[in-house]
Amino acid sequence: MEQPYVLGIDIGGQTAKCGIVNARGEVLAQTILVSNTQTDAQSFIDALASTLKKLMSDAGLDGQVRGIGVGAPNGNYYTGEIKDAPNLTWARAKNVPFAKMLSEAMDGMPVALTNDANAAAVGEMTYGAARGIKDFIMITLGTGVGSGIVIGGNVLYGHDGFAGELGHTCAVRGGRVCGCGKQGCLEAYCSAIGVARTAVEWLEQHPDESSLLRLRENITSKDVFEAAKAGDKAAQEIFDFTGNLLGRSFADFIAFSAPEAIVLFGGLARAKEFLYEPIVKAMNDNLLAIWKDKVKILFSSLSESDAAILGASALAWNL
Amino acid sequence: MEQPYVLGIDIGGQTAKCGIVNARGEVLAQTILVSNTQTDAQSFIDALASTLKKLMSDAGLDGQVRGIGVGAPNGNYYTGEIKDAPNLTWARAKNVPFAKMLSEAMDGMPVALTNDANAAAVGEMTYGAARGIKDFIMITLGTGVGSGIVIGGNVLYGHDGFAGELGHTCAVRGGRVCGCGKQGCLEAYCSAIGVARTAVEWLEQHPDESSLLRLRENITSKDVFEAAKAGDKAAQEIFDFTGNLLGRSFADFIAFSAPEAIVLFGGLARAKEFLYEPIVKAMNDNLLAIWKDKVKILFSSLSESDAAILGASALAWNL
Repeated sequence: MEQPYVLGIDIGGQTAKCGIVNARGEVLAQTILVSNTQTDAQSFIDALASTLKKLMSDAGLDGQVRGIGVGAPNGNYYTGEIKDAPNLTWARAKNVPFAKMLSEAMDGMPVALTNDANAAAVGEMTYGAARGIKDFIMITLGTGVGSGIVIGGNVLYGHDGFAGELGHTCAVRGGRVCGCGKQGCLEAYCSAIGVARTAVEWLEQHPDESSLLRLRENITSKDVFEAAKAGDKAAQEIFDFTGNLLGRSFADFIAFSAPEAIVLFGGLARAKEFLYEPIVKAMNDNLLAIWKDKVKILFSSLSESDAAILGASALAWNL
Repeated sequence: MEQPYVLGIDIGGQTAKCGIVNARGEVLAQTILVSNTQTDAQSFIDALASTLKKLMSDAGLDGQVRGIGVGAPNGNYYTGEIKDAPNLTWARAKNVPFAKMLSEAMDGMPVALTNDANAAAVGEMTYGAARGIKDFIMITLGTGVGSGIVIGGNVLYGHDGFAGELGHTCAVRGGRVCGCGKQGCLEAYCSAIGVARTAVEWLEQHPDESSLLRLRENITSKDVFEAAKAGDKAAQEIFDFTGNLLGRSFADFIAFSAPEAIVLFGGLARAKEFLYEPIVKAMNDNLLAIWKDKVKILFSSLSESDAAILGASALAWNL
């Protein structure tokens, strides 16, 4: 029987988004599984397999799906394992042989696993802003800062499958403590959580300046975005600061792999109108002459709800 | 006629080292051309072609050489051009179509060009410390700091052929002005010139402390090495400082490409006994847990006089 469909699954700390995708990159059916209630991996896998089987059956596509692509935090393409993912209740401080377990629960259907940022990079290259671009760096600005590096049309996995942890390169030497335990990581400043931390610091350091943000308790990056759109100077300064740190880090990334473009994706990338200019300025100020004004900064063109599923699904076509 | 030999040429600011190499990586004959007297590219190419023809003829190998591999500052593998190389008297502020010109002067013999650090990486992979290693980063610690990045057994050239300028990533934000015009580059601290600058700064900042280096005028990195070997505490502190900056930069490079090893090469790499420990400590202190104590720091195993020729020559086998 012909198998013209694949499953794409994007696993996050709260939910697993699952979808059936055709070769044109259309999500034909999708569903969401809550992923923060299971404490052991087998329970999660069993719940996921039931969800996928029901999804295929409801769509009338039993037997027509050729494989499963999965993006997950700390997912390793080479080994198929999820290795010590602190945000997944069922994968903390252990190695879960995820691809093998899911394949078994799905009656032998082949499974490809990678980390969520790599999956996003594949999705962007296959269906999004990076179509036709063979050398680019995907930066995901979400709760954390992730990255997927594409070289000559292939995702860079490195010696051990963990390449592309650019969120944990140093943005500020001796700076803020990051969730990973190190100091000054890009993620500690330029993630959604990082931007909220910057906002709290800004308010403390400028006690005499007014800002809409003073009306908020538990400031989020979304609050900062809303305030910036309303013309709040403090919020705009916070995005200037964030964009500056991103841009100067990007300059170092470019010196490594000489990409054609850097593609931004994730919730914080919605603040394009406030981030684009400071990123481009800081990047070019820190680049060697050979690259000045030559590297494109692109923003994802995929809808966020589809992108994660599409990216993961794209892995499955080669299975 | 069988053509079992290649020519390897390493072009530096002072000399071009030329050699004939066999498939086992033995340098059968070599010679040196002074490269800092010509002010136009054609004069240099003509002198180089004469030198190469004489080398082949003297060795009795006319007609048995299949191609030429060249490593040169700012050499571009894709275009065959040397682009604005400030250290080459005949390639300043211009693009020299080097591969094409040399091939014409050599009666059509094929020529492959890359930058000197990439050539060293190929040499190390083919004949040296990186044999059997498919993912590594070569760092050349010479007058400048260069790098060649190998991924899956292939040199990373990037979108434009200029990938791997890790000497110009930021080691100290807002730090010393580098030869490239930017501030705080790794090269401004960890090259031979950078180490000499650190020595001068150290002496100024510690007026009351004795050091053998106070006896020197125009301190060089070699003076610092000699003093460190003689037990000079200041010189050893200077290497600690240098190794620390290298190690913490290496941690960021590892987060990019997840290599199996970092290989050090060049004049300054001779100071292994003083650099190894501070590099390894700073690197591991700045790595994510998944890489701590896992990435090897290797020192080139090729003799320096051969390595440059061997590396360049290795490019020519695929012509």
